[in-house]
Formats: sequence, structure tokens, C-alpha cells
Amino acid sequence: MTIYQNLKAVRGRKPLVHHLTNWVTIYDCANIVKVFGAAPVMAHAKEEVEDMAFLASSLVLNIGTLTVDFIAAMKKAAKAANKKNIPVVLDVCGAGATKFRNKKSFELLDETGIDIIKGNASEIAAIAGEKAQTKGVDSGKVEKSLFDIGRSLSKKRKATVVITGKTDIICGQNAVYLVHNGSEIMAHVVGTGCMAASVIGAFAAVNSDYSQACANGLACYEIAAELAAENSFGPGTFKEKLFDCVSGLNKTEIEKRAKVEIS
Amino acid sequence: MTIYQNLKAVRGRKPLVHHLTNWVTIYDCANIVKVFGAAPVMAHAKEEVEDMAFLASSLVLNIGTLTVDFIAAMKKAAKAANKKNIPVVLDVCGAGATKFRNKKSFELLDETGIDIIKGNASEIAAIAGEKAQTKGVDSGKVEKSLFDIGRSLSKKRKATVVITGKTDIICGQNAVYLVHNGSEIMAHVVGTGCMAASVIGAFAAVNSDYSQACANGLACYEIAAELAAENSFGPGTFKEKLFDCVSGLNKTEIEKRAKVEIS
Amino acid sequence: MTIYQNLKAVRGRKPLVHHLTNWVTIYDCANIVKVFGAAPVMAHAKEEVEDMAFLASSLVLNIGTLTVDFIAAMKKAAKAANKKNIPVVLDVCGAGATKFRNKKSFELLDETGIDIIKGNASEIAAIAGEKAQTKGVDSGKVEKSLFDIGRSLSKKRKATVVITGKTDIICGQNAVYLVHNGSEIMAHVVGTGCMAASVIGAFAAVNSDYSQACANGLACYEIAAELAAENSFGPGTFKEKLFDCVSGLNKTEIEKRAKVEIS
Repeated sequence: MTIYQNLKAVRGRKPLVHHLTNWVTIYDCANIVKVFGAAPVMAHAKEEVEDMAFLASSLVLNIGTLTVDFIAAMKKAAKAANKKNIPVVLDVCGAGATKFRNKKSFELLDETGIDIIKGNASEIAAIAGEKAQTKGVDSGKVEKSLFDIGRSLSKKRKATVVITGKTDIICGQNAVYLVHNGSEIMAHVVGTGCMAASVIGAFAAVNSDYSQACANGLACYEIAAELAAENSFGPGTFKEKLFDCVSGLNKTEIEKRAKVEIS
Repeated sequence: MTIYQNLKAVRGRKPLVHHLTNWVTIYDCANIVKVFGAAPVMAHAKEEVEDMAFLASSLVLNIGTLTVDFIAAMKKAAKAANKKNIPVVLDVCGAGATKFRNKKSFELLDETGIDIIKGNASEIAAIAGEKAQTKGVDSGKVEKSLFDIGRSLSKKRKATVVITGKTDIICGQNAVYLVHNGSEIMAHVVGTGCMAASVIGAFAAVNSDYSQACANGLACYEIAAELAAENSFGPGTFKEKLFDCVSGLNKTEIEKRAKVEIS
Repeated sequence: MTIYQNLKAVRGRKPLVHHLTNWVTIYDCANIVKVFGAAPVMAHAKEEVEDMAFLASSLVLNIGTLTVDFIAAMKKAAKAANKKNIPVVLDVCGAGATKFRNKKSFELLDETGIDIIKGNASEIAAIAGEKAQTKGVDSGKVEKSLFDIGRSLSKKRKATVVITGKTDIICGQNAVYLVHNGSEIMAHVVGTGCMAASVIGAFAAVNSDYSQACANGLACYEIAAELAAENSFGPGTFKEKLFDCVSGLNKTEIEKRAKVEIS
């Protein structure tokens, strides 16, 4: 699928993207899915996560404001998603900051089938067992080559690994994608990282080549961010324009702006 | 009360609207009440919901991100509200999507006094026991006439039933209202449905004719949405303009734009 | 530190501000810290709050949507922050509204070291044991002089006391500050109060004179609010412009607009 075909499939099929996510950016995660033309649902009660996952076309997990009970509900949802064979995205938000976050991330990875692992450089390094200190939920310094870390984690976990940053690195089973789109201002607004995982959830719901879906989704999202940045006055107005620009994204802009490398 | 009189009463009396709502749109629910000139409060601890409900002029319940404990707190709050004789609004957000949501909705309806039941077509159908499949929290297809469903549910539950959509249908004990206002873009932004229930909570707090209050509140809210849609570039800027337009809503615009039918 | 020096220190040192806050304005609290150039982290699991507090440069507690478990996590976080000797800010959001809120506020004040207590007039009055009725989370009427209340609470609790309002009163151990900046519109948007506590957390993280840090932070925040109010059309667009204006705040505007009195 081309980038635009993948976007059209999201808009046309309107997949239901089930989230168990953090309380900080839960609205943004839902709304970005909505403005992309898909259907978000946020449901975390252990009594209903399996039923909801069965209705859904993808599942997005984000550990930003994790608790023991919340992770337990995530496991139930992920196992149901695995049974239905829909893609499961795990945003390892804040991994590396505390032992608890690492432990719970590993439990999710060990006990359920995670198809796509997404984080910034220091979060992914922590999950890969590399030395890095995550500063809260922001990226810290990483020593080893990001490519090597991404590729070996992808192999080890049999998952697509997405490392977001100025250039996004997507390590799939068969290919590595680099997405060079996006705007500097994204790093100055809360929620842009979490929304990226939700976008991936929407694109992977309609494209079974998950690493391609990640690249396509991030390209669309970040092209919209470029357009929004050009039409805003700062991080507040940028965020609202981002939703506008995602909603109005068209083929011409995508073809003009997309900077996706495959190797 | 005319529409404008009801709005003036909200602004003048600034009723406290107590919410137990979902974590996705909790900010929007609070802020829409605030920009209408009323006072929102969000409190869900079982140790304080009764005290808070006693201070309040209406109670809004929304099951969007329900859990067993949260529903238990809702029941306590609703029973306190019933004792104080203030209106209780139940937004059956996502009803029909899972058995758990239906079960908990029925418990609330059976065990407490709900004055106003609000949902979209498939949610209300599910609560009325009709065949419909809710897709996450968005509306699915419904077979039977919405009027018949609303009227029979209203009778059965001795409650005002509000079915939101392109035309909102409000089935009261004595009258049926149709509100034809609103904008297409509302369906493309997360939170517009939840906010509608909060608006109803504010208007019913100062108007004991609940079905009229629902019609008046929705008319105001949706006229503001029309104004916002005319002055925005997409779903992101629309949402911010909506708060502006609610805050600035005046008699002239209401009288010019209101399309409320009563039968 | 001058106001601008304090702002520069926030932007330069990017302190990690750990929050346990309410679910209504949690996004706004995170984002205001981010646009000020600092790093927010929201983490409330009892298994990780101590580790996160050890990483942080300040801790902000807000009881807006408190529960028994959440307060227990706050105590653990505060004790860890006390050990590390970083400032702890307590926003007594809604204190006075219910007995439960008062009780839990007193527990936090009695059992942990709170450096800065922040609230509006009726919330602070409630915490000081004065007669006042908080209306939900908005300010009610207070009988005694606010200065007297603030000063005696500051002495009793060995803490800086911040009473927000048209003029903010900051009662430190050695000085009293008055901040006359801000805009009327702040009272008409949900979240402006909660964000003030987060801003204080960021400024106190890099300025050990806590009462001065409170005055500096509020002055910056409220000057940005003045600029935003002048460039917006209502409460919705104001909120987004506020983030823009905080991000773009410069020395010239601060020096031109700051109205901080010290006595």
C-alpha cells in the first residue's frame, strides 16, 4: 500500500481502535484517531476489555499512567486481540524512568503478543536492555546505535520496533523504514508521542504489513504536523491546527512532502 | 421557559453540576459547563459523592470509561441526588458495545432514579432492548423507528429520553421535542456527545420541566456549534471556537437560528 | 532571582516536575510545564511514585479528583520528595466542599512536608480552619482578611501559602508578595487554577526561595494570560493562545508588564 492508499483505507473502513492508555493524553489519542477518519474507543474495565477487543480492528496500549490493575487489564485485552489476530501496539511511555515501568513493560512483552513496540530513543533502549536514563517521559541519551538497538529488539521480540525522533526509525522483520517528516514544535507539546502510537494503531488496522503501516501512518501524521506548524503561532494553536490538518490531508500534500526511505 | 430564559437562568444562578464521567472528555464536560456560566465539579470518591451531590443542583453520569467501583460511586451519588430531588442525567455512552456496559446501565436505571437518559441512536436502542450494534462509542444502525423506541423507553423508565443525532429527539412524559440545530462537524470531534449531556445537566438544574430543559440546552449548544463551524478551519479549531461561541451566545442569534419543534 | 532570571533557569535547567494531579486538567498541567520549557511527568502508581520523585526536581499534588488510594500514593511521593529535599506543592483543589477533602488535605499537611500550599480564597480559608463554603471547586465567600488567614496558615504549617485571585497573595516565612497580573477571562476557563500550581512547581524547582519562586512563576504565567486574552475571542481560543504566549514570553514583556509587590 502507498501512503495515500493506507490513509484512504483508514478513512474508508473506519477501523475501531481500542485503547488502554494514559489519563494525560487520552483525549488526544481518541481525537487523532477520529480526525483520521477511524473510530476510537477507550475501555479499560477488566470485565469488558475482551469484548471490546473482539469488536476492534486494532489495540493500542500505553503505559504512561500505569498501575498494577491497569496492566492486568491490558494483558487481558492483548490476549483477546491476539486471539482475534488484530495488531497490538505497545507505547512504552516512560520506560527506563522507573524499575516498575520496565518490569511491567517486560511482562506485557513476555506474556502477550505485541506486534508493534513504539517509544523514543531512551524508552526503546531501556526495553532493549541498553544503558539509557529516561528523564520522566522525555528522551534521555542513548549510547549504542539506534539502528542496532531497533533491529536486535525487533528480532528478539518478533515485533516491529518504532523509534520516534527527528527521524523515525521503523525496524520491521523484513525492512527498515526511515521517516524524515515532522516539525520541531512537536517536541514542545504534550501528547504528540502518544498520538503517534494511536495513528499507528489506525493504519495497522487496515494494512497487514505492519512496518509499512507504521511508516505510512507516521508520514501522514507528520506531514499534517508540518502543515500545522506553518499555520500556527506556538504550541497551543499548533495542537488545534494539527487536528484540522490531519482531517484535511490530501493526496497532493502527501506526495509533495513525504520523505520515507526504505532499506 | 423560552430558550433564552433558560440560558439566562443558567448564567444568573450558576448551578453546580456534579459529574461522574469518563476520563476521555472530562475536561470538555467541565469546560462546557463553565463557559455556559454554570459551575462544574468532578468528584467520584465513594467517600464524598453524597456530600458533593447534596451541594449540587444537578448530577451528570457518563459510563464512557466505567469500572465496577466507578458505577458503585455513581449509584451512591444518584441516590443522594434523588433524596435532594435534583435532576440526574445518565449518558449511556457506548451502551450496546459490551454486555458489561448494558448490565451496568440497567443497574443504574433499576436501582436509582434517572430523570434523563441520553444517548445516540444505537445506545438508546440497546438500553430500550432493541436490536442494534454500537460500534465502540459511535452510533450503529437501528432498525425500529427512533420515535417509537424513545417514547416507549420514556414510558418504561419514567424518564425523559434524549436521542442525539442530526435531529435530536427528546421524548418527555408530556411532549416530544425535535431539535434541528447543529453542525455536521460535531460528529468528527471527540467529546461533542458527552458535552451535550453536561449542557443538559446545566439547563435542567434551573428548569424543572426537564424535557423542555433538554431542548433548550441542546438548541443553545448546537447554535453555538453552528457559529463555531462557520468560523473554523477543521475539527481542531472548531472545538476551541465552540467554547468561545457558547460563552458569547446572545438572544439575537438564538432567536434567529433556533429550530425546535414540539409535538 | 528576578522574574526573568527564574524563567531563564526553568528553560535552561528543564526541571522534571512530578505530578499526582486530578483527571480533569491533567493534560493542561503537563502542557503548561512543557511550554514553560520544563519537563512534566505524571505518575501515581504506589509502586513507582518514590522512584519518580527521586528523579524529579519538584512535586505537585492536586486533590481535585482524590480517592483514598490516590492520597496514599501522594503521601509516599511527598515523603520521598522530602527525603530528596525538593519542593512539594499542594493544590487544595475543592477543599471546603466536602469533609473528605478537608480530612485528606489535613492528613497530607500533618504527615508529610508540604512547602507550598496553594488554593483560592475559600479553599485556603477551609484549610486554615476559617468559615467559608467552597462551591464545588470554585471560590466561595470568606469572612476574615485574606492576609491574616494566609499569614497565620503560613506560620502554622511552616509553608509558603499562595492565595490566588484577582490579586494573588503569597505569604512566605519572611516576605509577603502580591501579584497583580492576570486577566478576568482566567476565571472563565477550567484549568487555569490547576496550571498555576504546576507553574509554581517548575519555578520552585530552580529557585530555593520558594515564596519568590511563587511570585515569579505566577507573574510570568499571568503576563502570558494577559497577552493571550488580548489576542483571543473567548475562553476556547484564549486557552490555546495561553500556551503560545507562555512559550514565547520574553524579557521585554515581563519587564513592561510585571506588577509584583513585596512587603
